[in-house]
Amino acid sequence: MDIASCIGVFWGVAMILTGLKLEGGEFKEVLQVTAAIIVFGGTSGAVILQFTPARLIGAVVGLKTVFRGVKMDPAGLIHQIADFARRARREGILALEKEIPDITDTFFSKALGMAVDGLEPKTLHETMETEMDTIEEEWKQKAEVWEAGGGYLPTIGIIGAVLGLIQVMKELTDIEKVGEGIAVAFVATIYGLVAANLICLPIAGKLQSTGKQITKFKDMTLKGVLLIQEGINHSIIEEELKGYLDEKSRAKYTSAGSAATAGIGPAPGGTE
Amino acid sequence: MDIASCIGVFWGVAMILTGLKLEGGEFKEVLQVTAAIIVFGGTSGAVILQFTPARLIGAVVGLKTVFRGVKMDPAGLIHQIADFARRARREGILALEKEIPDITDTFFSKALGMAVDGLEPKTLHETMETEMDTIEEEWKQKAEVWEAGGGYLPTIGIIGAVLGLIQVMKELTDIEKVGEGIAVAFVATIYGLVAANLICLPIAGKLQSTGKQITKFKDMTLKGVLLIQEGINHSIIEEELKGYLDEKSRAKYTSAGSAATAGIGPAPGGTE
Amino acid sequence: MDIASCIGVFWGVAMILTGLKLEGGEFKEVLQVTAAIIVFGGTSGAVILQFTPARLIGAVVGLKTVFRGVKMDPAGLIHQIADFARRARREGILALEKEIPDITDTFFSKALGMAVDGLEPKTLHETMETEMDTIEEEWKQKAEVWEAGGGYLPTIGIIGAVLGLIQVMKELTDIEKVGEGIAVAFVATIYGLVAANLICLPIAGKLQSTGKQITKFKDMTLKGVLLIQEGINHSIIEEELKGYLDEKSRAKYTSAGSAATAGIGPAPGGTE
Amino acid sequence: MDIASCIGVFWGVAMILTGLKLEGGEFKEVLQVTAAIIVFGGTSGAVILQFTPARLIGAVVGLKTVFRGVKMDPAGLIHQIADFARRARREGILALEKEIPDITDTFFSKALGMAVDGLEPKTLHETMETEMDTIEEEWKQKAEVWEAGGGYLPTIGIIGAVLGLIQVMKELTDIEKVGEGIAVAFVATIYGLVAANLICLPIAGKLQSTGKQITKFKDMTLKGVLLIQEGINHSIIEEELKGYLDEKSRAKYTSAGSAATAGIGPAPGGTE
Amino acid sequence: MDIASCIGVFWGVAMILTGLKLEGGEFKEVLQVTAAIIVFGGTSGAVILQFTPARLIGAVVGLKTVFRGVKMDPAGLIHQIADFARRARREGILALEKEIPDITDTFFSKALGMAVDGLEPKTLHETMETEMDTIEEEWKQKAEVWEAGGGYLPTIGIIGAVLGLIQVMKELTDIEKVGEGIAVAFVATIYGLVAANLICLPIAGKLQSTGKQITKFKDMTLKGVLLIQEGINHSIIEEELKGYLDEKSRAKYTSAGSAATAGIGPAPGGTE
Repeated sequence: MDIASCIGVFWGVAMILTGLKLEGGEFKEVLQVTAAIIVFGGTSGAVILQFTPARLIGAVVGLKTVFRGVKMDPAGLIHQIADFARRARREGILALEKEIPDITDTFFSKALGMAVDGLEPKTLHETMETEMDTIEEEWKQKAEVWEAGGGYLPTIGIIGAVLGLIQVMKELTDIEKVGEGIAVAFVATIYGLVAANLICLPIAGKLQSTGKQITKFKDMTLKGVLLIQEGINHSIIEEELKGYLDEKSRAKYTSAGSAATAGIGPAPGGTE
Repeated sequence: MDIASCIGVFWGVAMILTGLKLEGGEFKEVLQVTAAIIVFGGTSGAVILQFTPARLIGAVVGLKTVFRGVKMDPAGLIHQIADFARRARREGILALEKEIPDITDTFFSKALGMAVDGLEPKTLHETMETEMDTIEEEWKQKAEVWEAGGGYLPTIGIIGAVLGLIQVMKELTDIEKVGEGIAVAFVATIYGLVAANLICLPIAGKLQSTGKQITKFKDMTLKGVLLIQEGINHSIIEEELKGYLDEKSRAKYTSAGSAATAGIGPAPGGTE
Repeated sequence: MDIASCIGVFWGVAMILTGLKLEGGEFKEVLQVTAAIIVFGGTSGAVILQFTPARLIGAVVGLKTVFRGVKMDPAGLIHQIADFARRARREGILALEKEIPDITDTFFSKALGMAVDGLEPKTLHETMETEMDTIEEEWKQKAEVWEAGGGYLPTIGIIGAVLGLIQVMKELTDIEKVGEGIAVAFVATIYGLVAANLICLPIAGKLQSTGKQITKFKDMTLKGVLLIQEGINHSIIEEELKGYLDEKSRAKYTSAGSAATAGIGPAPGGTE
Repeated sequence: MDIASCIGVFWGVAMILTGLKLEGGEFKEVLQVTAAIIVFGGTSGAVILQFTPARLIGAVVGLKTVFRGVKMDPAGLIHQIADFARRARREGILALEKEIPDITDTFFSKALGMAVDGLEPKTLHETMETEMDTIEEEWKQKAEVWEAGGGYLPTIGIIGAVLGLIQVMKELTDIEKVGEGIAVAFVATIYGLVAANLICLPIAGKLQSTGKQITKFKDMTLKGVLLIQEGINHSIIEEELKGYLDEKSRAKYTSAGSAATAGIGPAPGGTE
Repeated sequence: MDIASCIGVFWGVAMILTGLKLEGGEFKEVLQVTAAIIVFGGTSGAVILQFTPARLIGAVVGLKTVFRGVKMDPAGLIHQIADFARRARREGILALEKEIPDITDTFFSKALGMAVDGLEPKTLHETMETEMDTIEEEWKQKAEVWEAGGGYLPTIGIIGAVLGLIQVMKELTDIEKVGEGIAVAFVATIYGLVAANLICLPIAGKLQSTGKQITKFKDMTLKGVLLIQEGINHSIIEEELKGYLDEKSRAKYTSAGSAATAGIGPAPGGTE
């Protein structure tokens, strides 16, 4: 459960409603079916036209990762890969075959499976890179849907506003009606701006960075498998993969694996 | 028939008109020849100046794919390529010659034809990649036309609005005329915003992603033909091409082709 | 003569003036020296500051291609290159020397001249690629000038509008003067928006795509010359260069050159 | 202490408040809890939804470098590397081992450590490049948070403004209330614009260029270590690394190290 | 002296002031200390926060090149390089040593010096390319400062406008004060827009294209030195470098150097 995301989405709206209340306004002033129909109806039309149903579903399913978060343990993965590398050098890469069913990450298990099956590094690399590109693209596409929605919403909010103002123009003399019409106009604007800036665009941003994070994790996984296949010393692999960790995790990792690192010196003889 | 696209284009406009009606407005209030002439006339002028007639026709023809959809069966293609690869290894690549006339995708048939004719992989790759780049460019160009239209429309809508307001300024004392003039102004704005956000920009987005999808399919086709030409084992080809499938199709494909996948182990001996 | 461009530029303005007339406005309402001085004077100042005189002249000269069009015959070029390739294989590349003076495209004649003179492919490639990059850059620069103009115009139109409104503020009580001042303001806005959206930006877009088209043509020319120099079979060259044609031209070309294409099979022996 | 940054942040706000005072306004006119709640509450919600807590903390921690500055001495580094290179050529690269604990930059000490440990240049290069990419990405991510904030702020300021105007619409007849409501609206707008343009966006820009600067420094460090490992002559290394200095530092450096530069001539015999 | 730049900066402002005068306005109407303090004070704060003092100074120093112009003679450089190449082939590259002190361009003299000193082409190329990248980056950074300024100015102009309007709101009944307050507001807007669009953004654009031009010149210089070092025939070098010239200079150059060009034929024997 990604509590921050859940808080974020309610916090923003709550603050705005608090502000409204403090100004002496009422919640029902900003509850308007007409404005909602125009803004959300119009935007959904634009989005349905632009994206295939499959992509729309993918974008909605992507919400799960936004609010549940993704679990990735890069440090744990490095430990596991270093462990596999040690055993592969000692007992041969075939010794890893019985570990594959225990790997939950299908990308890792597929890559390791190919390495164990003896595929050439070039083929393994190409195959897994294609898969990685597809995964990256899928996340980008999810984000694009929300971004497009966040782009259409404010403009369609303005369409709603202008439609409301046209009603106002009809009876400029009736000051009551003027106020009412302008209110609809403004609520449509607010719906468009709030839905775009507090919901759609942040979600698009989150999906995009989640995609980047996942792609980086896969990249690190693939790199690790290729190094195992090359038969590189486990402590060198650890050093190489540690480059993927951010500064904090890297610092933490170093202190834990200091014994292993000390072994870099004598090992390189066997690297090529 | 891409039903979603058809629904999308009507749904958006319908929702906006429903909103208008709910606010007590009339459809005829937003039907205005003058505003239409300014907005669509002005935009068409800008677009005709910017693009050659051939590109404009291409962009309009591109609508067919938006509303009819494109049929591509990546999973089917992988099966077919795997099948071809199996036969090419058994009977030689010339055995595929009689299959070529049955291939409906001209890109696939040309690539396979070149492979069967014994052209070098490098030449085949270069030739088909140039063709692929041209196809990608063509789709981008179609999308660009609609994007440009979507860019000009709101601004020319504002030109219409300002022209209307100038009429209003002439007789600020006649409140009736003021309302009328402002109405024209607003309708021009609405035409510009609706045509841009509910029609042009979504269509541009759809054409762009359709182009990407088609290019990816061609890329996968070319990769497959090159692997057949290299004489790679069919199950490895399947693994490589499956990287192009999205997660869902990949999962589905795996279960169907599990028997073939099992054969990865013993095969790699013949890969190089 | 690129009739479409000429129509485009007048059509857009004509439609907007028609709209003005239909709303009961007069042409002279939008004819204002003051607004024109502010908008076009201000924009020209910005553009003169940003670009060197040479680039400004280049951008204006670029208008010729916008309104006259560029003549390029990719299909004809492929035929010519294929013909040259056939003769180069039969009679040696020196046989092409006497053709060079007849080639009107200086890029083609220079490249072919270098090939005939026996320069190494790498040197030929590098030299012509540098020239191609310079040509591409020149077109981009022409487009940039118009794009910059199209970027400044609406904002400077707003400066004109605000200056007009300041005059209005001085005598808010005189309703006549208010109307007049606002009119200047609005005309400045319209000048900025119309000049940007109906003239500058479409011209920038056209120059940019003309540049891309020319660069692609040069790229195809260079590719062709390099393939002639390599001594590749003419029908293979045709196949490779056809990848540069758009779908329609490709389809047309195929039907014309079907006899030649049939000859792919026996040829590759001599490709490397 | 980066005094310029500290001055910058106060100077901008001070100038705007001075202007307000000069116009006869009061500071308390722009102090409004309601507007602050809407603008900063809404923006924080959007930002919390978009970024993980770790990234938000990273962005806030990044402020330290904005206001404290980063200390990097490229010229000093070149001297140190040149010195190391001289000793490595004379006494062997192992002689540098005892220097490593004295290097405060962990990136430098890790790279040099790997070189001393005898790792292959390719492995060293890949490992350190991955680490460099991660560092670059971290800085980009810090900047992105502030940029996103700077993007949401003005729009949410407008939401606050429109909410205020809705209150105004309720009682158009009470001119006092109209003024008050519009004031809230305007203050929300000002909060959004000031916070975005005087705080968030400049900080984002600074973080981004700090990241670039740091990455360039690491790049130079890595290049230096690789040249030491290759056993290149120290004066050539100096020449190569001086390319990373800006014009001014380069000019200064040259005059200091002129004696060393004179030695380029006789050295190259030992470069490969 | 780059007269065009000087004219550009005054012309734009002059035209706008002329327009103001024609509308019956007074210069003093747009002279307002308060507005200037808000707009330029606020913008300078943002810019000081975003950029280090060194970069700000660099950006201001960059104005020299905007108003003085840069002198580069690509055609002259080609002649000089061709001349050097001829002598290097005849008398050996060491014969160029005595020419180095006469070269005013430090980039050229450093590159040629390295070539004469016998450094490997790869080292020479890498060293000079790093220096070229640094130069390119420096120019980009200068442009960025002005671009950032041009980005903040209009928004801070709006902040000034809104602050002015808040004063207006206080006394909506006093029509005199309303006009006055709105005037301040509008002047702040004009200051922001004029300073951004007539000064900062064009300067940013000019610095950017100056940087590109300089980088291209350095690139051509480096290419020339590398070709001299390779011992390539001077007429081939001329042909290669002519690709860097724009169409007009190329045409002019050809006619001048036609005698040299005629020598391409017999030369290539010695190119590799």
